[in-house]
Formats: sequence, structure tokens, C-alpha cells
Amino acid sequence: MALFPKRYHPPGTPPGTLLSGVGADQAGVQITLLDYSDAGFTVTRDADVAQCKAAIREDSVSWIRVQGRPTAELMRELGDAFDLHALALEDVLNAGQRPKLEPYDSQLFMVMHLPVFDNGHIALHQISIFLHERYLVTFCPCEAEAFSSIIRRLESAGTRVHQQGIDYLFYSVVDLIIDQSFPVLEQFGTQIETIEEDILSTPDREVLDRIHRIKRNMILLRRSLWPQRDVVSRLLRDGENWISEPTHVYLRDCYDHTVQILDLVESYRELSASLLDIYMSSASMRLNDVMRVLTVIATIFMPLTFITGIYGMNFGNNTQSPWAMPELRWYLGYPLVWLVIVATVAGMLAWFRRKRWL
Amino acid sequence: MALFPKRYHPPGTPPGTLLSGVGADQAGVQITLLDYSDAGFTVTRDADVAQCKAAIREDSVSWIRVQGRPTAELMRELGDAFDLHALALEDVLNAGQRPKLEPYDSQLFMVMHLPVFDNGHIALHQISIFLHERYLVTFCPCEAEAFSSIIRRLESAGTRVHQQGIDYLFYSVVDLIIDQSFPVLEQFGTQIETIEEDILSTPDREVLDRIHRIKRNMILLRRSLWPQRDVVSRLLRDGENWISEPTHVYLRDCYDHTVQILDLVESYRELSASLLDIYMSSASMRLNDVMRVLTVIATIFMPLTFITGIYGMNFGNNTQSPWAMPELRWYLGYPLVWLVIVATVAGMLAWFRRKRWL
Amino acid sequence: MALFPKRYHPPGTPPGTLLSGVGADQAGVQITLLDYSDAGFTVTRDADVAQCKAAIREDSVSWIRVQGRPTAELMRELGDAFDLHALALEDVLNAGQRPKLEPYDSQLFMVMHLPVFDNGHIALHQISIFLHERYLVTFCPCEAEAFSSIIRRLESAGTRVHQQGIDYLFYSVVDLIIDQSFPVLEQFGTQIETIEEDILSTPDREVLDRIHRIKRNMILLRRSLWPQRDVVSRLLRDGENWISEPTHVYLRDCYDHTVQILDLVESYRELSASLLDIYMSSASMRLNDVMRVLTVIATIFMPLTFITGIYGMNFGNNTQSPWAMPELRWYLGYPLVWLVIVATVAGMLAWFRRKRWL
Amino acid sequence: MALFPKRYHPPGTPPGTLLSGVGADQAGVQITLLDYSDAGFTVTRDADVAQCKAAIREDSVSWIRVQGRPTAELMRELGDAFDLHALALEDVLNAGQRPKLEPYDSQLFMVMHLPVFDNGHIALHQISIFLHERYLVTFCPCEAEAFSSIIRRLESAGTRVHQQGIDYLFYSVVDLIIDQSFPVLEQFGTQIETIEEDILSTPDREVLDRIHRIKRNMILLRRSLWPQRDVVSRLLRDGENWISEPTHVYLRDCYDHTVQILDLVESYRELSASLLDIYMSSASMRLNDVMRVLTVIATIFMPLTFITGIYGMNFGNNTQSPWAMPELRWYLGYPLVWLVIVATVAGMLAWFRRKRWL
Amino acid sequence: MALFPKRYHPPGTPPGTLLSGVGADQAGVQITLLDYSDAGFTVTRDADVAQCKAAIREDSVSWIRVQGRPTAELMRELGDAFDLHALALEDVLNAGQRPKLEPYDSQLFMVMHLPVFDNGHIALHQISIFLHERYLVTFCPCEAEAFSSIIRRLESAGTRVHQQGIDYLFYSVVDLIIDQSFPVLEQFGTQIETIEEDILSTPDREVLDRIHRIKRNMILLRRSLWPQRDVVSRLLRDGENWISEPTHVYLRDCYDHTVQILDLVESYRELSASLLDIYMSSASMRLNDVMRVLTVIATIFMPLTFITGIYGMNFGNNTQSPWAMPELRWYLGYPLVWLVIVATVAGMLAWFRRKRWL
Repeated sequence: MALFPKRYHPPGTPPGTLLSGVGADQAGVQITLLDYSDAGFTVTRDADVAQCKAAIREDSVSWIRVQGRPTAELMRELGDAFDLHALALEDVLNAGQRPKLEPYDSQLFMVMHLPVFDNGHIALHQISIFLHERYLVTFCPCEAEAFSSIIRRLESAGTRVHQQGIDYLFYSVVDLIIDQSFPVLEQFGTQIETIEEDILSTPDREVLDRIHRIKRNMILLRRSLWPQRDVVSRLLRDGENWISEPTHVYLRDCYDHTVQILDLVESYRELSASLLDIYMSSASMRLNDVMRVLTVIATIFMPLTFITGIYGMNFGNNTQSPWAMPELRWYLGYPLVWLVIVATVAGMLAWFRRKRWL
Repeated sequence: MALFPKRYHPPGTPPGTLLSGVGADQAGVQITLLDYSDAGFTVTRDADVAQCKAAIREDSVSWIRVQGRPTAELMRELGDAFDLHALALEDVLNAGQRPKLEPYDSQLFMVMHLPVFDNGHIALHQISIFLHERYLVTFCPCEAEAFSSIIRRLESAGTRVHQQGIDYLFYSVVDLIIDQSFPVLEQFGTQIETIEEDILSTPDREVLDRIHRIKRNMILLRRSLWPQRDVVSRLLRDGENWISEPTHVYLRDCYDHTVQILDLVESYRELSASLLDIYMSSASMRLNDVMRVLTVIATIFMPLTFITGIYGMNFGNNTQSPWAMPELRWYLGYPLVWLVIVATVAGMLAWFRRKRWL
Repeated sequence: MALFPKRYHPPGTPPGTLLSGVGADQAGVQITLLDYSDAGFTVTRDADVAQCKAAIREDSVSWIRVQGRPTAELMRELGDAFDLHALALEDVLNAGQRPKLEPYDSQLFMVMHLPVFDNGHIALHQISIFLHERYLVTFCPCEAEAFSSIIRRLESAGTRVHQQGIDYLFYSVVDLIIDQSFPVLEQFGTQIETIEEDILSTPDREVLDRIHRIKRNMILLRRSLWPQRDVVSRLLRDGENWISEPTHVYLRDCYDHTVQILDLVESYRELSASLLDIYMSSASMRLNDVMRVLTVIATIFMPLTFITGIYGMNFGNNTQSPWAMPELRWYLGYPLVWLVIVATVAGMLAWFRRKRWL
Repeated sequence: MALFPKRYHPPGTPPGTLLSGVGADQAGVQITLLDYSDAGFTVTRDADVAQCKAAIREDSVSWIRVQGRPTAELMRELGDAFDLHALALEDVLNAGQRPKLEPYDSQLFMVMHLPVFDNGHIALHQISIFLHERYLVTFCPCEAEAFSSIIRRLESAGTRVHQQGIDYLFYSVVDLIIDQSFPVLEQFGTQIETIEEDILSTPDREVLDRIHRIKRNMILLRRSLWPQRDVVSRLLRDGENWISEPTHVYLRDCYDHTVQILDLVESYRELSASLLDIYMSSASMRLNDVMRVLTVIATIFMPLTFITGIYGMNFGNNTQSPWAMPELRWYLGYPLVWLVIVATVAGMLAWFRRKRWL
Repeated sequence: MALFPKRYHPPGTPPGTLLSGVGADQAGVQITLLDYSDAGFTVTRDADVAQCKAAIREDSVSWIRVQGRPTAELMRELGDAFDLHALALEDVLNAGQRPKLEPYDSQLFMVMHLPVFDNGHIALHQISIFLHERYLVTFCPCEAEAFSSIIRRLESAGTRVHQQGIDYLFYSVVDLIIDQSFPVLEQFGTQIETIEEDILSTPDREVLDRIHRIKRNMILLRRSLWPQRDVVSRLLRDGENWISEPTHVYLRDCYDHTVQILDLVESYRELSASLLDIYMSSASMRLNDVMRVLTVIATIFMPLTFITGIYGMNFGNNTQSPWAMPELRWYLGYPLVWLVIVATVAGMLAWFRRKRWL
């Protein structure tokens, strides 16, 4: 997830200016039209704008789903066709908005983040949703697959959705986006549990990297989820014009999920911070172990080397003096030195044992 | 306690869909029916659904207790029999819900967490409670023992509970679930006190592991207890339709307990974080001790080894030069070297003593 | 202070059950009756229940002070005699309650914590207070001395207290309990200042232990003081039925003290956390010092030992080869080696000086 | 960014006293007058006060932009000419104010901070804005370039701004100031990402310095952005007298940006704190590596040196005793010593391998 | 600043008891009377109580300034003379109160803290202020200089203050006390900047001490400033009886300053905590450097010493065996050993270079 997610105009650009973003590609944009009325349910893939505009009728509920990265021109065309607010269009093009809810007079504009687990990191796709009285327009930069489950569901249970009206369709999209966090967080939960097992046995650099990655993702995810929670909460509180009573009950469930997701993120963040402390402690424990070995070795062998050094001195060549290393000439000199050596080692070992270093 | 406790449907599943969970086992489900009226108190173990349904009468108070992991089919059957809300049924099957309170029109649905101390970790069992006007339905995945104390109490003091009505029974269940945290937290309190004693004397890896386990459990427990507190608080505030005045007083006591439990969890979490710091400090203290020993040993023996090295050189063989290690030929050369050695050691020791390293 | 202070019934016990606590001792309970009316002030030590009950009259103000650990039977007797609420009686017996305020219809029940400095740790005694219209009943597990100052004051200034009514007496007790924190915190303040002086000069294990003890006490004390603050605040806000206007002014002063005490506890907790960081930094500083000495010593003596090792080799015995350590046969060989040694040492010392290690 | 940004009078100076600040320079002050009415748009660079005053008419909208550091005299002159509140004038001269909004009777006074990325640090320039009914006066200590984009925009799209009135001009200035944070934060985001890559491979001192610089800038930036958010929020809530309905919508967008900027700052601050922990862990990991090498080397060579030391002793010269190092006289003595040496090394290596140190 | 600033009575003392504090000194108390009416402005230094009392008239505004540490007797006398509330008098004597605002019926009592930078630490002096309808009484334990600037200002601009009434005088005193924090915080800002420069180059013990001192002062200062902010905020909100409209505007400025001061304190506290982390990291970096030198030295010289040790063994004396160190007898034995030594060193250096340790 990028640290700086925001696409922004040069400061001073007038509000409502539409500029094609990097990677905008008119050809790659796919518009799918879902329309259902008493007459039944129809899906039109690769629809064009005129087709969609025609589908908006009093007696049907339509969902216009725009996938890909539209250019400024296409946005303007779509905005005109479906009566989308100019400031909102700017927000669609300038990806990296905070999740937000803007109730305009004739429409409800909502920005949400769809988290996708991608190669160890979370990518957040901005989903922009326009709710009108009879139709829904959504913008999604990501691949066609993201909403496929909802379309399959519409196809199989179309009538029930139809009975519920446009707000139920709207709820279904919001619910899908929010629930997408669960598989992502499940993966992080598993990762943390793996690290917990590894951290005491093998606290190496790679573990450190994994902990940091988790913590970073949690910090960034939280940055996106707090406003998302607020958006759903405001929808519950102030959305009575847009959300009917039965859908409101479902949306409350939705809100519970956003809160639970935040709880998970917060506790993962805390746990990863705690793991970092454990890592530090464990590393310093290991250092203690290493140093103890070094100290034990050095403390045993340095005196021994000194003893052998003594009798490596060449004073014994001076045969005139009785003081010149008489030990060298003793009958049991060499075995005595070994005795001293063994006694020294034994004494050291006993001392280390008493200090609990061995 | 699992880091990711939530059982969830694939995103995009319509709300109210019932899917049997992993480990769902129709045969293992035990339904206990407790029924008391003016006529007296009856317990029917291993009741079937029809029996229970029959027991619900105007003049009696019934408790249908479902233990084990019901399948989706059984849930649907129970839902129909006892008029349980569809969304709530989904929450019962998808264990790992946050504690929550859902007031539906005809019933109050409540999810709580029963903490059980299991092998050094806390397991949280989701208890789902449906409160109707004349009867109570509870779902519990855990063994029959959890609520046995409450049944024994009902059997012995049945009449009093009967006079109080269904809300008192409801309170009794909630109270039991909340108070179950006390023995669990008492255990953690004892553990922390043991660690406090061990940490300065023997800061080894196992202590580190124990601290982490406590901190982790407190983080996860808190995640469950905060919403539990909110649930009880909302029950007090908004539950006047369900809770009679006398029971309200008892429930206030209940609320005090949830707050006190949270206080305990928070202070244990803080203490375990503090213990981690102490652990680090203590380990680094020990490293200091180890390194000081090493330094003292090295500082004493390295110069000595150098001195013996000097007189281990073979210049003395050159008898032509008066400059070729004349010391070797001195009458007191060897004792003098010892003098130098002893003086060096004494000097070092004095210096270390002055630096307070010994 | 115990980490887990709460005495609790086995979960599932019905509310209002009275069980004698550990250490309950009917014989050790002392009841003191203080009674003052226009007729004057009387203190009856070791009063019995009947005597106390008789003293409660329209025209006098009575304080029944129960000291020690009453059994369940005695509690029931007292409860009957003085009309004490059943749930409150349970709270009195089950020590370790959070500070709380329970306004019942005919009485105000209040739990507070009296901090006592005991052997380096704080002990918190639960004081339970029942305020009725004409009398006050207090329970205190601690020794008779705690409230002696208030009794002496009543004896000397009895009339004034009498004029003020029972609420002033109540205030006096609350005030005493709260102010008792000041001497305790003053001690901790002094301890922290001592540690601040010691920590840079002698960061040893004992300092670590003292810091932890302070931090621990502050964490636990805060756990008790936050609800105590709330209790006094609620008393100010909602206590108009019980507290007269003049006493209200005094109680506001009381509230200021609880806030100030919390400020002190919070800042001591922060300071002790900061001290732990300083300790760590100071210890790591010392390690640096130790390691620098080791490195200096090793860096100087290892090359020297190598040099002496060179000339300790026995190639010189091979007199056939001119390449076989001719240095040994040089006229100034030995002094030259010394020159090399001295030059090496000098070079090292210069290098260390430039690196600011010496 | 200076830690102490505030310019203040000596305590005790009466309010509204105007003192020239350090670096005040009447000559360097540039006044630009922008004026547009139905007659068209005019820019007068280096205008004088009288000119500006003349431009304020019923039928035109004027922006008087003062750039540089005016002296107290000039301020007084400007204050008189444009009816600026005395206390506000003091705030303009005493740079380093918190962002604030002061609604006076006839004018709205607003202080904002313009962040400028300057040589790795953020500089915050205080922009003071006076909004009157027909004209806007702004003070900016920084170079002329800061607002040039807005002027270019006015020149090209002048009419539209004119239709919108003075509040739209006001909004444009506020929007520019706020959006200026985006490029600054983008730079910090990039810096953090670079550090994340470097920190595990080369955790040197320079990285530490960069982390601290980021953290410091975030702490100081946050200090300025929180009140800025409040200012915009209060403008939205209470500014209905000054802000027309259409501009209000734009301002809401503006508010979203301040919140998003704060989110970014908070997450960068958290990430930089986390990076510091990673740095510590990584450094301690490296120390472990270094120490392990040392320990391996010492543990292998110290016993070897001891062995060679044994046979460097001169007991072999004593030919009288059969105990005097008979090994020296063995036929295979020397190869045997090598065997011992090789076996020792092999044993050590195997032991290290088992301990995973190699 | 003392950790425990509070002067308190023995718990159980009745409220309103006046006890002379330590250092109370009737002789050292100086009373200054400032009085201004239409007739002009008079200052009477070393006034006595009767004089002051006489000065309180309908047509003049008086300020009675008491400097030093009054005894209980003097306090009682002053209390009687100027109608000061008994509880407030107790607060004046018992220094170390939290800043507070007590609106009594006839007077406003306010406690504030005047920070004074004293020898590297902040000292907080308690200023007690009584605001009556026609006069102001202030108590200050500190030297006469603190308020001298305000008196000079009164003398020079006396009339204006007179026109404004007593509330403007009151505001002037409060403003002076609050603004006194700026020079103090400016000093701390400079200190932190100095430490930031020193910490990476010379992280020694003295730096650690300075960081701790700053952090400590910020913790204690914050403890005093939060309630001070509340006091000014409550004065703005509830003080309409005491503060006239024009003064209210000035007081709002005052409030801005308290908020800005708190911002500064909070960011300094955060920065000093961050500096502690940098210190730790920097110290551990240095340890790494030291250890790397040691390891390089040891790794190079230990194998060399081993090599020389080999040829220091006395096997060569055994001339019977061809296996007895034939190297010693080789023609180029000694140069070959040097070759091995040089190759070893070169190999080591290359290895270290590859590991980036050199």
C-alpha cells in the first residue's frame, strides 16, 4: 500500500477540474449494465453510455458498473448522462480519496476502499458509488472479478433484489466491499501466529521484516478503515431518505462488521508492536548466550595460556642461577603443571556453575 | 484464543444465508428445556423441538438451552419454531461475532463471550441469547457444564425465579457469563505475580514467553470485553421494555462487574508491557555483568601473556650480543618477572576496584 | 497491593447472597457508636447492635462505625437493624469492589478505597459507607486508628458538626479517605527523586526493582482512583437530595483533591516509565564503557603478543639457512623488537585518542 | 521548523501593541491589488495603500495582497485604511500564531500555516487573512511565487470568480494553502519508503538521523495542522454569515483535505516511530552477528593456542626425567599434535553448527 | 519543580483551617496598594491593611497586592478586611493547589501558576487572585519583580486601565502570568535543539541527564497547564458576570496563548521521548562500532598467534624423527611462515571488506 495514496491536482487548480489520471485508458474501460424490472433481469456487458442512459426508466432498477480507469472526457460524458455532481467526478478521477459520504440534493455520493491482498501487501482500490433514486453508478479501477459474486447472486435471485429496490442493491455493494476485509485480515492473523512461533526459536532478520510489514499494513489499513466506519455510521444515522427500513436492518449488520474489522486491525497492530518488543528481548537474550560462551571460553583458556607462557620463557637456559626456573628441572615438573591446569579448569567450571552460566 | 475469531461467509453472500459451520453436528446437539409455572419446575434433558414448542404457554416461563454446534437445517427448524430473526440465526452459526445487542420487534438478541481458561490460554465461547416475552433461547457451543450451576440454582430456588419473570432468568444467564471472567483473571493475576518474582532472578526465555502469552491474551480479551461492556450498558439504558425495575438494579451490579473486569484487563496489559521493559533491562544488566567478567579476565591476563611472551623469544641464544635479552642471564631474572606479574595483577585489581567493577 | 483484589462468589450465585469472607471474625469486630444531639456528644466504644439501633432518633445524628471483618450472620443482623440494602451488604462482604455510588431509595451506598502505605507497597482498604437520613453506617476492615483523627475532631468541635447535620459528617469521612492519599503520594514522590539521583551513578538491579515497584503501584492506584473520582463527581452532580448547599462547597474542594491526586499518580507513572528508559540507556552506556576498555586492552596487547610469538618460534635453531630468523642473531635484535613494541603501543594510543575512546 | 515558533512581546505588554518584528523591512513589502468588476479584471503590482483604498467600491471585488515583513508603522497605516482589528494586527506582526479564526463584527480574521519544503525540513509561513464584505486582505511573509498560481487562474477565469463573490476568492486562498501540504507530504512519504528499504541492509547513523528528522517534522507539523483543521471546521459550522451556500460545498471538500492531511501526518509519525524500533532491532541483530563471529573465532583459536603453548614449554630440556614432556621425543609427536588440533577445530565447528551459529 | 508540590493539612483537619506554612514570615510580607480613580493613579508601597481597606471606595478601582508568605494570623486579618472566602484563604496558605476557578457569591477566586526558569528547572509559583466588584487582591510568594512590568504599565497608561474597569486589570494579571511561559518554553526549545545536535556526535551520560531533565519538566509543567487551560476556558464560558464584553475579546486571546503553550509542552515532551530513543539507538550503534573493532582485531591476530605458537613448540629438538617439525629445518621455512601470515591477514581483510565491516 502506498504511503502517500492521494492523487492531487497542483495546488490552486479550481474545484471540479477533471484531469485524466496516470494510466487513464478509455479503451480499457468496461461498462456493464444490470437492469431488472418486472419484465426480468438483463445483463449487458460492454454497454455504451447511450444504452445505459436508455435503461434508466421509472419501472426498472439499473446498475451501471464502470470498470477501469476512465479519461477526463469519458468522465464528463458519464457525468452528463447520469447527472453526477462535478466535485464528485473529480474525486473519482483523483484516486486516493478518504472514504467519504457526500449527500447531494439528487444523489448520494460515497467513496469506499476495497482491500485486496496482493503479494504480502494490501492494495486499497477506491470504489466510488453514486446512488440515485432509480439507478446506481459505481466506479472501480480493479479487474472485473471483484463484483462478479454479486452479479452471479443477482442473476440467480434477481426477483428478490428487485422487490427490495435500489437501496438493497446499494447495500449489497457496500456489504461486499466491507466483507472483503475479512479474508485479508484472516491472512494477517495467520501470519502473526506463524511469527509468534518463530520469534523465540529463530529471531532472524527476515522475521523482523515480516513484523514491520504487518505493522505498516495495519497502520495504513486503519487510516482507511476509521473513515469507512464513520461513513457507514453516518449512512445509518442520516440516510433515511435513501435507505428503506428493511435495508436499514441489514446495514446495521454491515456496521457491526466495520467495527469488528477495526477491532481486528487495532489488536493486530498492538500485537505486532508487542512482537517487536519480544523480538528485541529475544535477540538480547541470544546475545547474552553468545557472550556467556565467549566469556566462559576466554576465562578458562586465558589463565591456561598464561601458565604455558610462563614455562615457555627461556630463563631455564641460565644454568648458573638456582632461581632460574628451577621448576623446569624438577622430576615431576611437567605433570605438576598439568595438575595446576586441570585444577584451574575445574575451579573455573565450578565457579561458572555456581553463577548458573553453565 | 484465535487471532482471527470470525467465521464468515464468502463476501457477497446474501444476508440471512445459513450455512453449517465446520464441526456442525446435528447428533451432538443437546436441547434442554427448563419450564416453570405455578405448577412447579421441570427440566427436560434431550428434549426435541416439538416438546419445547409445546412448553411455551402463557402461564409459564421457559428456557430452551441448545448446546453444541447445530447444522443449518436444525437452525432453520429452531428459527421457525421459536420465531427467531433470520439475521440473528446467521450470527449464531457464524461464530466469532462481536458481543452485540440487537433489539428486534418481538425479541431481544444478544451475543456474549464466555471466557474459559484452557491450558494457559483463554478460549472465548460465543453465547447467543434470544429473549422473548415468555421464553428464552440460548445457544452455546461448549459443554453442558457451563450453565450447570445456574440450573442447580433454579432447581433449588425455582419459585423465586418464577416470581421474578423471564427477565430475571435472562439476567441470571448474563451475570453468569460475565462473572466467569473473574476466575480467569484471578489466574492471570497470579501468573503476573509469579513472573514479577522470577524476572529479576532468572530472566530466561521461558519468562519471555509467559509475558508475551499474558499480553496477547489481555489484548484479545479486551477486544471482546469492550463491546460486552457496551452491550450491558445499552441494555441498562434502552432495555426498559425488556427489563423490569427490580431486575434493573441487579443488572446495574452486573454492569459494575464488566467495568471492573475491564479495569483488571487494562492494568494487567499495562503491567505485562512494563514487565517486558523490566525483562529487557534485567537482561541488559546481566549482559553487563557477563561482559565485566570477560573484560576483567582479559585485562588481567593479556598483559601477563605478553610478559611471558617477551621472555619466550629466542634472542637469548645470541650469546655474542650483550643486548640480546640480558635479563635471561640475570641471577634473579625469573623471580623479577614474577614480581612484575604480581605487581601488574595487583595494579589491575586496584584499578577495577576503584571503578567499582569488582 | 494485590493484582486481583476482588473477592467474588462462584459465578452463578444468586445476587444478594451473603457469605463470610476469609478471615471473617465475629469476635474481632468492633462497633463504635457516635451520637450527638442538642444534649451533647457521646462516644460508645464496643457498642452492640441493639444499643446502636436505640440511638437512632429523630433529634440526633448517629454514626455507627463497624471495624473488622464481620461474618455473614453479623452482616445480616446489621442489615436488618439499620435497613441496609441486600446487594450493598454483599458488596461490603466481598471486598475488592470498585469505588462506587449506589443511590437506593432510602439510602446512599458508597464504596471508597483508603490507601495505606505499608512496607513499600500501598494497601487499599475498602471503606463502605451507608448514608441514611439520620445516621451513617461505615464498614472498615482496618485498624481503629484510621478514623481516630476524625473522632478526636468530633469530640472537640462536636457542636458545629451537629449544626451541619449528617451530610457534613458524611463529607468529613469522605474527605479523610481522599486526603489519606497525600502522605502516600508524598512518599512515592520522594522515592522517585531518590531514584533520579541514583540512576545515573549506580544503575544496579535494586534500582530496577524500585522503579518497577513504583510503576506497579501507580498502575494499581490509578485503577482505584479513577472510579473514586467519578464517585465524587457524581455525588456533586446528582447528590442534591443528600448533600446540603454548604456541604456542597466543601465537597467541591474534595473533588479538586481527587483530581489533583490523579494528576500526581499519572505524572508519577509517566516519570517511572521515563526512568525505566533512562535506566536502559544508562546501562547500555555502561556496557559501552566496559566494552571500550576491553577493546582497548585487546587491541593493544594482541599485536604485541603476536610480535613476541614471532620471535618465540624455533626457526633460529636452523643455523644452516641465512633466512632462518636472522633477526635473532642481529646485534641489536632485542632492543629493536622493543622499539617495534613501543611504537605499536604509541600508535594504538594515538588512534584511540583520535577516536575519543580514551 | 523552529521548535519555538512564536514571536511574543515581553509579558505584560498591553494587548494590541504593535512592534516591528526582526527583519521587518518597509521597503521589501510588496502590495498587489487585484480588482474585478463587471468592467473586467485588473492587477496592479506594487500598488500603494491609497490606490488600494480607492479600489474598494460597492460594485467590485478586491484582493489586497501584502507580501514581505511590514513594519509596525505600515501595519498601522494598513489597519486604518482597511479597517483591520487592532488585536489581529498584533497577531500578523507576531508571527508564529496558532492557526485560528476570529470572527469580529465587521470582518473575519483567519491565521493559517503554509508549509514549504525547504532543504529537508518544513518551514511554516503564517498567512493572515482578513475577509470583509467587499474585499480580502492577506499577509504573507514569503516570496511572491506562493500565490502566483491563484493569480494566473484569476486572470484566465476572472469572470467566474467574479460571479461567485468575495467568499469564493477567500475559499480559493484557503484551499491553496491547505493543498500545499500534499506535495510536502508526498516527499516525506517517499523518504519513509526509502528508509524502509535501507534500514535492514545498512542501518547506519545517517539513517537514524533521517528517521529523527521525519519524526520531528511530523510532530511539529501536527502541532500546526490540528488547529488548522479546527479552523476550517468552525468556518463550516459557524461561517454562514460569510460563506454562501455554493462555496460551502467547496469548503467541505477543503475540510476533507485537512482531515486527510492529518491522517497522513499521523500515520507517518507512527511509521517513523516504528522505524526507530526496527532500527534498534536491526542494530542489535547486527551486534549479535558481530559477536557471534568473535565468539566463534575466539572459541576455536583459544584452545589451539593453549595446545601450542603446552609444547612451547621448556620442560623437554630436562632430559633426566622421563616425565618431562616425553611427547616431544615421540616419533609421531608433532603429527599427533596436529591431529589433536584438527580434531578440536572439527569438534568446535560441529558444535557451532548444531547451535546454528554458522 | 518538586514532584509532590502540594502542601496539605493532616488528613481529617476541618475545612477552612488556617495554619501558617513553613517559611511563613509576617515581617517579610509586603503589601502594595494601587488605586486609581478620576482623581488619578496612586501607588502605595508597604501599605498596611487599614490603608488598603480605606482605599476601597465606590469611585475607584483598587489592587491590593500581597507579596511573600503570610502567616495564618495575617491571612485571617486580610480575609476579614477584604471579605475573602474562608476555604479560599486555606488554599492560599496551602501552596501547591491545582490551578482552579471558584466563583463564590461575592467574589471570583482563581489560582494560577507562574512558571519561573530557575537554574535549569522550572519553579511554579502559586498566584492566588480574588476578584471583587471594585477591587482585586492577589497573593504571590515570589519576589516583587514578577509584576513590576504591569505596574510600570499602569503608571504610564493609568487612565486607559481606569476606563476599562476592574476586569481589565484582572485580565492584565492573568495575561502576564500566562505569557510568562513563553520565555521559559523558548529556553527549553533551544535546549532541545542543542541536544539534537549533540546526540549523534557525542551521546554521553550528560546528554542523557539533560534529556531526562527536559522530559521531567515537561511532564510536570503539563500537569499544571492543563487545569490552567480549563480555568481560562471556564472563565470565558461562565464569567459573563465578572468579565465585560471588551475584556472578553482580550481574554479570548489569552486562551489562545494557553492552548499554544500546551501545544508546545506536548510537542517538547514527545520530542524528548523521541530523543531518548535516538540516544539509545545511537549508543547501540556506537557499541556496534566498538565491537566491530574488537572482532576485527581478534579475528586477525588470533590465527596469527596460533601460527607463531605452532613454531614455538619444541618438537624440533627431537632430531631422531623426520616427522618432528621438519619445517623448522627447511631452507625457506621462516619466510614461508611470513607468507602464510601475510596471506591470512590479506584474506581476513578481504572478508571483512566484503562484509562491510571496514
